[in-house]
Amino acid sequence: MRHRVDAGMFQQTAHSPSYFELSRRMGDHGGQLIDFCIPCNPYFPTPDMFDFLARNLESVLKFYPSDADTISGQLARVLGLNPATIAMSNGSTELITWMDHLWVRDSIAIPIPTFGRWTDQPMETGKRVDMFPLQEDSGFALDIDAYIRFIRARGSRTAVLCNPNNPDGGYLPRREILRFMDALSDLDLVVIDESFIDFVEAERNPSVAADAAIRPNVVVLKSLGKNFGLHGIRFGYLVANPGLAGKMRRTLPKWNLNSLAESVVFMLAQHGEEYGESLRLLARDRYNMGMQLAQLPELTVFASQANFLLVKLAPGIDGTELRDHLISRHQVFIRECGNKLGMSNQFLRLVVRPEADVARLIDGIREFVQPRWEQESSAQVRPLVVRRIS
Amino acid sequence: MRHRVDAGMFQQTAHSPSYFELSRRMGDHGGQLIDFCIPCNPYFPTPDMFDFLARNLESVLKFYPSDADTISGQLARVLGLNPATIAMSNGSTELITWMDHLWVRDSIAIPIPTFGRWTDQPMETGKRVDMFPLQEDSGFALDIDAYIRFIRARGSRTAVLCNPNNPDGGYLPRREILRFMDALSDLDLVVIDESFIDFVEAERNPSVAADAAIRPNVVVLKSLGKNFGLHGIRFGYLVANPGLAGKMRRTLPKWNLNSLAESVVFMLAQHGEEYGESLRLLARDRYNMGMQLAQLPELTVFASQANFLLVKLAPGIDGTELRDHLISRHQVFIRECGNKLGMSNQFLRLVVRPEADVARLIDGIREFVQPRWEQESSAQVRPLVVRRIS
Repeated sequence: MRHRVDAGMFQQTAHSPSYFELSRRMGDHGGQLIDFCIPCNPYFPTPDMFDFLARNLESVLKFYPSDADTISGQLARVLGLNPATIAMSNGSTELITWMDHLWVRDSIAIPIPTFGRWTDQPMETGKRVDMFPLQEDSGFALDIDAYIRFIRARGSRTAVLCNPNNPDGGYLPRREILRFMDALSDLDLVVIDESFIDFVEAERNPSVAADAAIRPNVVVLKSLGKNFGLHGIRFGYLVANPGLAGKMRRTLPKWNLNSLAESVVFMLAQHGEEYGESLRLLARDRYNMGMQLAQLPELTVFASQANFLLVKLAPGIDGTELRDHLISRHQVFIRECGNKLGMSNQFLRLVVRPEADVARLIDGIREFVQPRWEQESSAQVRPLVVRRIS
Repeated sequence: MRHRVDAGMFQQTAHSPSYFELSRRMGDHGGQLIDFCIPCNPYFPTPDMFDFLARNLESVLKFYPSDADTISGQLARVLGLNPATIAMSNGSTELITWMDHLWVRDSIAIPIPTFGRWTDQPMETGKRVDMFPLQEDSGFALDIDAYIRFIRARGSRTAVLCNPNNPDGGYLPRREILRFMDALSDLDLVVIDESFIDFVEAERNPSVAADAAIRPNVVVLKSLGKNFGLHGIRFGYLVANPGLAGKMRRTLPKWNLNSLAESVVFMLAQHGEEYGESLRLLARDRYNMGMQLAQLPELTVFASQANFLLVKLAPGIDGTELRDHLISRHQVFIRECGNKLGMSNQFLRLVVRPEADVARLIDGIREFVQPRWEQESSAQVRPLVVRRIS
């Protein structure tokens, strides 16, 4: 069965149309959509947690949320951080916007490809964005020393580093990030975006949040929506020394958090174990999904420590056509990276999903590439590209 | 039964503690709390709408909301406004914060008493706040000409007018507001805060939103949370000419709206009739509640066109003690205005609620004032103070 999807809606912005926008346009068929675009955590919150929220929805929505200080105090208790070092926000994008207004002067350095707001936000306010291109032939691995040299050569006053990186999931060990921070202690600001760090398996305590809190110019950014699989709620936070964190807390709009964010923060204390289990399941799915995709000779899979996998299509396969095929024939929604700086539509960012969903994705890709595949009698299974973790 | 409430929590901020904070501290008894502080609409959304949201909660929360342009486009269709003249926000407070950062230079005039953010936000960023005190002996009515003279005398570069005003509910007819806007067309900015205007019965089309859209320096602010009784969701918007509205749209953080806000905006088109009915019921409750409160000789009730009533306690009755009595003995939560500029703890702002809730409030007030009341043999029923609507 073929569903009508207006291809024009993919071309409007640097980001995919939202799941809701697509569901509305697909009408009744939207409910069966499998989404490989939004980096959800399919195992968290648990069904019990959603039931609790649904039962209490009316009182949650009818009353004002507490102010950000009350909520971030509770978050600090749950995370074991000093509340003076935290500022909570309506999604990490709110923090990126305000940091750009308050703290980014003249210029900002960022490795690309990256999360779109890191390039677009400072450009929209007239800053110079110094883009450091990660190289495909080294698996998009970030060479810290080369990046520092680039920052010095350009004279960037702010530097951003996403760990793991988006869209490739590349990860640098904690000691490398510390070295980066220490080498740039004279900059106006160093931002470590750890939005996806909870998904890291490569080492035990990957976050540098506590290290940021004792440095003069470092901010660590976290996105709770990404970790907890609740993008619709909008909540994130930063960790920095009490001077910087306090300045941001005082500047952000009061009541910037909604009541569902407040409810979830207060639920977290009781559900830490389920959250840990969800991360284990997700890491298992990531491994299995990577192995299965790598068996398709038309795909190159890049090693990831996030909850998505960057995939490159073999020459001659058009990512945009594949996307349109998957959505119209298989109700599988993927994102091709043609509108991302430093990428092309030969790249897909595929969110890690459970086995059954991956099977439908692979069936869809197989169907699309079959004619080509049959022609290539010498097709070989390509190995999973493994990026060395220094 | 007496519940332990930490009185200290009332003293922390210029605003009441949130319903959630209070419920958490009260433990199991929190569920029976009647709240006269948060200006809800008890008749909207309907139970059916809440059921729909609760059933779809998981998919609503798991996916990113659409960007603000998509959502405000739909809002414009529902409200019959030109989408180029709208900017949607995460609560009206987000707009107050950004307007202060972008457009308020040096000084801002505001009648007091008022919504706390109108005085606190510009003070926090070092602006001069020119406060124009409304007079109790004229029922807190705003004299437009006197306010304009005050603005000229102080040389304020931005002027704000809340219609209806908060906390007294005083309303000025549309033609007075137009006169105000036209007299101040040379200011940097004129803001008409219409957060509570949907509750106005005094005339048919009270909003000046369409008039703002064709003026160079006028912004009309609306708070959907207040109209729809969904404070927890956080959403508001401004209406202004396409230049001003577009500048705000481009400046606000992307994805500043959460998915529940998006869902509700898309539900509104189907539920306009229920919304209209909720406003009629609320106006009926406002009238009945005002009449019943006015029969207590210890209270003076000010005429209101909003969904709350300002009430003054007779001399010798302490508002703070009454509040503590009501919460601990009757689980009725009221706000006294001791922490509001231009008010004192002799004033209460009581949200309009259905008859049964008002009965519990009146029982509680009676019990508190009884000893005094019995002493005053000559007590007479005071008339409802009616403010002339010019």
